[in-house]
Amino acid sequence: MDGTTRQSLLDELGARLGDRVTTSAPILAQHAKDESWHAPHPPEIVVFPQSTDEVRAVVQACAARRVPMIPFGAGTSLEGGVAALAGGVTIDLTRMDAIVAVNAADLDATVEAGVKRKSLNAHLRDTGLFFPVDPGADATLGGMASTRASGTNAVRYGTMRENVIRLTVVLADGRVIRTGSRAKKSAAGYDLTRLFVGAEGTLGVITEVTLRLYGIPEAMSAAVSAFPSVEAAVDTCIQTVQSGIPVARVELLDALQMRAVNAYSKLDYAEAPTLFFEFHGSRRGVVEEAEAVQAIARDHGGADFRWGLAAEERNKLWQARHDAYYAALALRPGLKGWPTDVCVPLSRLADCIHETRADIEESGLVAPIVGHVGDGNFHLTLLLDPDDARDRARVAAFNGRLVARAQAMDGTCTGEHGVGYGKIDFLAGEHGDGLALMAALKRTFDPDNLMNPGKIVRPL
Amino acid sequence: MDGTTRQSLLDELGARLGDRVTTSAPILAQHAKDESWHAPHPPEIVVFPQSTDEVRAVVQACAARRVPMIPFGAGTSLEGGVAALAGGVTIDLTRMDAIVAVNAADLDATVEAGVKRKSLNAHLRDTGLFFPVDPGADATLGGMASTRASGTNAVRYGTMRENVIRLTVVLADGRVIRTGSRAKKSAAGYDLTRLFVGAEGTLGVITEVTLRLYGIPEAMSAAVSAFPSVEAAVDTCIQTVQSGIPVARVELLDALQMRAVNAYSKLDYAEAPTLFFEFHGSRRGVVEEAEAVQAIARDHGGADFRWGLAAEERNKLWQARHDAYYAALALRPGLKGWPTDVCVPLSRLADCIHETRADIEESGLVAPIVGHVGDGNFHLTLLLDPDDARDRARVAAFNGRLVARAQAMDGTCTGEHGVGYGKIDFLAGEHGDGLALMAALKRTFDPDNLMNPGKIVRPL
Repeated sequence: MDGTTRQSLLDELGARLGDRVTTSAPILAQHAKDESWHAPHPPEIVVFPQSTDEVRAVVQACAARRVPMIPFGAGTSLEGGVAALAGGVTIDLTRMDAIVAVNAADLDATVEAGVKRKSLNAHLRDTGLFFPVDPGADATLGGMASTRASGTNAVRYGTMRENVIRLTVVLADGRVIRTGSRAKKSAAGYDLTRLFVGAEGTLGVITEVTLRLYGIPEAMSAAVSAFPSVEAAVDTCIQTVQSGIPVARVELLDALQMRAVNAYSKLDYAEAPTLFFEFHGSRRGVVEEAEAVQAIARDHGGADFRWGLAAEERNKLWQARHDAYYAALALRPGLKGWPTDVCVPLSRLADCIHETRADIEESGLVAPIVGHVGDGNFHLTLLLDPDDARDRARVAAFNGRLVARAQAMDGTCTGEHGVGYGKIDFLAGEHGDGLALMAALKRTFDPDNLMNPGKIVRPL
Repeated sequence: MDGTTRQSLLDELGARLGDRVTTSAPILAQHAKDESWHAPHPPEIVVFPQSTDEVRAVVQACAARRVPMIPFGAGTSLEGGVAALAGGVTIDLTRMDAIVAVNAADLDATVEAGVKRKSLNAHLRDTGLFFPVDPGADATLGGMASTRASGTNAVRYGTMRENVIRLTVVLADGRVIRTGSRAKKSAAGYDLTRLFVGAEGTLGVITEVTLRLYGIPEAMSAAVSAFPSVEAAVDTCIQTVQSGIPVARVELLDALQMRAVNAYSKLDYAEAPTLFFEFHGSRRGVVEEAEAVQAIARDHGGADFRWGLAAEERNKLWQARHDAYYAALALRPGLKGWPTDVCVPLSRLADCIHETRADIEESGLVAPIVGHVGDGNFHLTLLLDPDDARDRARVAAFNGRLVARAQAMDGTCTGEHGVGYGKIDFLAGEHGDGLALMAALKRTFDPDNLMNPGKIVRPL
């Protein structure tokens, strides 16, 4: 923005937000990027609103001057979702961290957008309830709604798509809407909630989220088993899901990822394709489920199926899973990780991983695989030297082939990381004329292209 | 439409569809209304396309002449969703009844829009899988997607919102889109699928639906219990859901509905507020669940809790529940039923039903209640003489108070019946500025207001 615009904007924002408006270089730099390898793009101003009303004031001030706005939560996105590609004002929502209401009888909670998922679960501890969606990072719930976050236990509890009941959203023109009621279901008009979930801040700024909660299960149990091949592991998973066994988590780690995990977390699992399971239910139920899965695993050559792990070993197991990304990085100290994910129908998952592994080898890449295998979703950590243009090009080309492979299998270019600008060029191949419809939606909601511009869709 | 338009449209449609284009009065009359009390509004032409391509041809022919189009499935909607309010062409999709693909390993099936849910389940019988959404009527799956249908086992399996993976849609300008991939989850852009689910044909014509399937549980078990009050029954349900017991169905019938059911189905249940339960799971699991619910019911005065019913009694129980509407009608032979539904947060359900019952009595109405109580959703059958203007006005006023009461409790004007034109005036009170956003969406998708006009939103 030009100097005059900048000054008048700073004056108006300052009058409203006081010292919660900043142009300090380190703070701009903190808001320039997410946790991915994408290059930083700092905003020109960062604001820290504390209420929906303040967000509205910021949006109105920016809209009047045609200044871009970028919502920012914990900054844990992975496809450049928070980069200020066209400059403008980053709206940091982390000071909107109030838990507005917990309605235990309704199994729901309303939180401001800046509440982080671990804080919510800490707050819920005494209620016997919990919020299950767990993307790994301790993201804000507004950010998780915006990116349609998912994670290890989506196979049982769904993603943010299924677990957001309603939203409060500040639209591009400063209007504030609530997307529906607090009823668990409704047939009263278009599903505005699901339209903002996953829109990555390009259609409006989410300021409040009402979420579904679940009773903490009476018992939790974990199991682990190595397999002779990725196919055998995936087939075990398919048969488990088909049998209606409601596994809470089922994670695949390939042999390379297991090697990385063993080294990083000082464990001694077999360096073979491995499934980690978690079961939630009654005390009898989790035993029954583990036994049923054990039988299925045995039929597919699952070796050393161990279940009913003691709490300590269970925690170690899941900690190792959560540290998979860092374990991957430790395989080649000095290199960075380019995380990517795709998702395919379960029946194609083994093929997709198999072809991808072959491509990794042909490309001479180091890229361990972990998968939320119950959903057909898997992640690669592509190790690269981001300062080496050839390495970057090689990894980018590989990523393009990965996406094309998944899309050709009737899958998606991203199961849970989102589009940001890192995957913006892959949507045409996935949506065809649907992409033009998305662009038309964008123009309807944000005719001046000010809401997180350059993400998901380009202007018509 | 004028005579010239009509003739040129008939010529173009006939050239494409042959004798599957009709202006026969009885067929127009069959397509003039749904199963509700709403007055008939016949279309001027009915077409019976057999493919997405034919639907596209119909849409293009209509769009070129600015002629309204109304998609039509089984005609089982309840708020006038299929009425041809502005005349035009009704697109009857029931001849698009092919089951395109069943992917057992992926737990999904793709069907043409005219496939009915019972046909799909009959087709699936040998696969060990089923499609759970059950709105009572044997509706088409395209219609169920369009109205965001739900029903008795939504508490466990979700509604059409959760169970549609993707759609093929013919847009108002004749473009055909597929809303995404067959992956179980995706973060690749705006959720077009959820935008068409529940749009009641006002944004485009759904021609193909990909649905989530589930493994048929090893065991099913039913239970029934009478309670001293609606509050006690609802509290039992709240505690059941909070305890994480995954009931497949939990239905409330009030004392009047139980009287109706006893008389209609020749049963002898207590004429008291009653819960019907169904449990799905392993053989041990359903026993465990029933025992847990029995303990909860006992704490709330549940009398004569009976479970593990023999198959015959279980079938009788659910048949009686499914016949609740006809049982209600039989309370006052000669009168018609005005079915309506609202949905509120579970914590407000007992209050909402209590106040509603008081209103029924003060209004001198006969109106039994059944509820999908695990979702906070309940239905009334308001008995009336539709030819008596005073009676109609009295029932309409009551319905308005019912909706206002639900909305004041942070609920919705319809949990599952949809808006059609019967509830169109209630959306403003529920969505505020969100309704203007819905109207803007409508204009983006259908600038000439030709897709099922007069439903959900009025033009801006």
